[in-house]
Amino acid sequence: MRWMQEKGLSCRTPSPYDEEAGRARHRWANRTKPPGSLGILEDAAVQLAAISGRCPPEIRRPAVVVAGADHGVVAEGVSAFPADVTRQMMLNFAAGGAAISVLARRRQADIRIVDAGVTRPPDHPDIIDCRAGAGTANMTRGAAMTREQLAHVLDGGAELAGALVREGTDIIALGEMGIGNTTAASAVSAVLSGRPPLQLTGPGAGLDDAGVKHKAEVISRALAVNRPDAGDPLDVLRKVGGFEIAFLTGVILAAVHNRLPVVIDGFICSSAALCASRMMSGLTSYLLAGHRSAEPGHDVLLDMLDLQPLLDLQMRLGEGTGAAVSLTLIEDAVALLAGMASFSGAGVSESGGGES
Amino acid sequence: MRWMQEKGLSCRTPSPYDEEAGRARHRWANRTKPPGSLGILEDAAVQLAAISGRCPPEIRRPAVVVAGADHGVVAEGVSAFPADVTRQMMLNFAAGGAAISVLARRRQADIRIVDAGVTRPPDHPDIIDCRAGAGTANMTRGAAMTREQLAHVLDGGAELAGALVREGTDIIALGEMGIGNTTAASAVSAVLSGRPPLQLTGPGAGLDDAGVKHKAEVISRALAVNRPDAGDPLDVLRKVGGFEIAFLTGVILAAVHNRLPVVIDGFICSSAALCASRMMSGLTSYLLAGHRSAEPGHDVLLDMLDLQPLLDLQMRLGEGTGAAVSLTLIEDAVALLAGMASFSGAGVSESGGGES
Repeated sequence: MRWMQEKGLSCRTPSPYDEEAGRARHRWANRTKPPGSLGILEDAAVQLAAISGRCPPEIRRPAVVVAGADHGVVAEGVSAFPADVTRQMMLNFAAGGAAISVLARRRQADIRIVDAGVTRPPDHPDIIDCRAGAGTANMTRGAAMTREQLAHVLDGGAELAGALVREGTDIIALGEMGIGNTTAASAVSAVLSGRPPLQLTGPGAGLDDAGVKHKAEVISRALAVNRPDAGDPLDVLRKVGGFEIAFLTGVILAAVHNRLPVVIDGFICSSAALCASRMMSGLTSYLLAGHRSAEPGHDVLLDMLDLQPLLDLQMRLGEGTGAAVSLTLIEDAVALLAGMASFSGAGVSESGGGES
Repeated sequence: MRWMQEKGLSCRTPSPYDEEAGRARHRWANRTKPPGSLGILEDAAVQLAAISGRCPPEIRRPAVVVAGADHGVVAEGVSAFPADVTRQMMLNFAAGGAAISVLARRRQADIRIVDAGVTRPPDHPDIIDCRAGAGTANMTRGAAMTREQLAHVLDGGAELAGALVREGTDIIALGEMGIGNTTAASAVSAVLSGRPPLQLTGPGAGLDDAGVKHKAEVISRALAVNRPDAGDPLDVLRKVGGFEIAFLTGVILAAVHNRLPVVIDGFICSSAALCASRMMSGLTSYLLAGHRSAEPGHDVLLDMLDLQPLLDLQMRLGEGTGAAVSLTLIEDAVALLAGMASFSGAGVSESGGGES
């Protein structure tokens, strides 16, 4: 795609380091425990070895990127909450009072809060300005954004990922904020999956059944008006996506291009990951799914991305909270592979331990 | 029961602080997020408020207790691994090279490693001696232990829990080690659940299908020989249990008596929790299930205990690893309840944020 070429991004991911993945598997097999008994944690550490080319892999500098934006489609009554909550929550992120703020502090992660197009700009020195406009246009009346707006947020995401790479970040967890953004994520996902919108539409932050049905109808109308091209993720993002979703797509593509593992959060981040995966082949091998969200469409996206989530805590908050909680498990996996003794080193008969 | 009376333990748990639980629910409702959107983490923090009588609750000093012992029933060929691995792994715990060692360090948790009756004593200054013998007797020939041996390990567990309470521990995660101990845990669970042994028997550290069937047959034989009284958990523990399982039962009873929350690990710890829950009514409200083990009988025990596990990572290592990994999530829950801003404090319209 042209945007990819202009940014110097290949449409293939860099090859994983298969040899280091093999070394990680071999190292697990020699740690003092029954084979495979650390379950998904073993897979996560092998994946990080394959991505980073190091065995054991390390996580020294995690970052959390939270992108926020508003959505013109809220005029159709698709959210239970007033749109100004996006701005209010962005300021709450910056002031340190939101769930993702607490979790990022606990993880000692750098947090980057990005305004990709909130209606009223949240004014705070710690919020990065990458505004493409004062919210998207109402997608039931035409495209959500212009080509220029789309390029602006894709570029911004790619540049932020590049900056994080230069600063030594070794894993990025993604989050988002935007009243109305489950509607955009459902629309994008419906097009890319070829499924009817209702299958990918849920209550978001608190719609009742009638509200969910209405939301799906609004999405169907937007798809009829825009006719996005399912074979062109950028066309889909531009017509029925959101600024923060496109920004995160840019983050993912540039992070993976630079061999950084990316932890995705819930439904909205997964819709960005789905877009990115259609633009760069092999991309999902660089992704980890932090959790399974309670938002019903998330299962469909996880299946399409072929990702197994680390957590299933019935969370549905967004902001990157599921990804940030799961960061600890990924760090545990890496610390276990690095820190556990081998059978010979510990004088344990192979294979020992476990629920035996 | 007489042992309970002698130890000054009531057969009812102390009443939870319902008022503090209500305050915790109210506090969650005022944090800047859609209601209920932190899922199971919200429940965990409410539970800790109810147990500790503080809102928000705190976790300042977590402890991990790992009890190890050997099992005479291994003479029947019920484990894929040589029995000396119990001793070897106990030394590995003490030397800091096992998975639970790495995780306890990462959690900054006190770790107490207890020899409840390993065949050859693991000689290390950091291993607590609470030996009831050189492994249990073979339960297919008679009772696994004497009344005196049972009392010794129950007492030891209760005393360790009491000591941890005095040292300011505010949550205890449990773990175990013992080649052959899934056989004992399956036998105990079969009696207390009234189910056929095969339903509660799994591969442990690595049996194949034929091995699992043989193990279930061994258990059936042990039950026929011993005829444990399903209404008397101490009779069940004595006849077909294990020293470490009884020790952990003592830890749980005394911890809960002292209002400490207890995080249980996999199948074996859950069998101890089931025993304890039959001796002290209301006990399960003081328990958290760290994870769902891949050992197939664990689901049955979690159902009987009415506990929802925090993690489902396909782990089946034991040692307390599932409980230790989940400790972070419990600490996250507590930190979020304490550290998140309220709607009014952050200037956010109620209710805001979320996948909206």
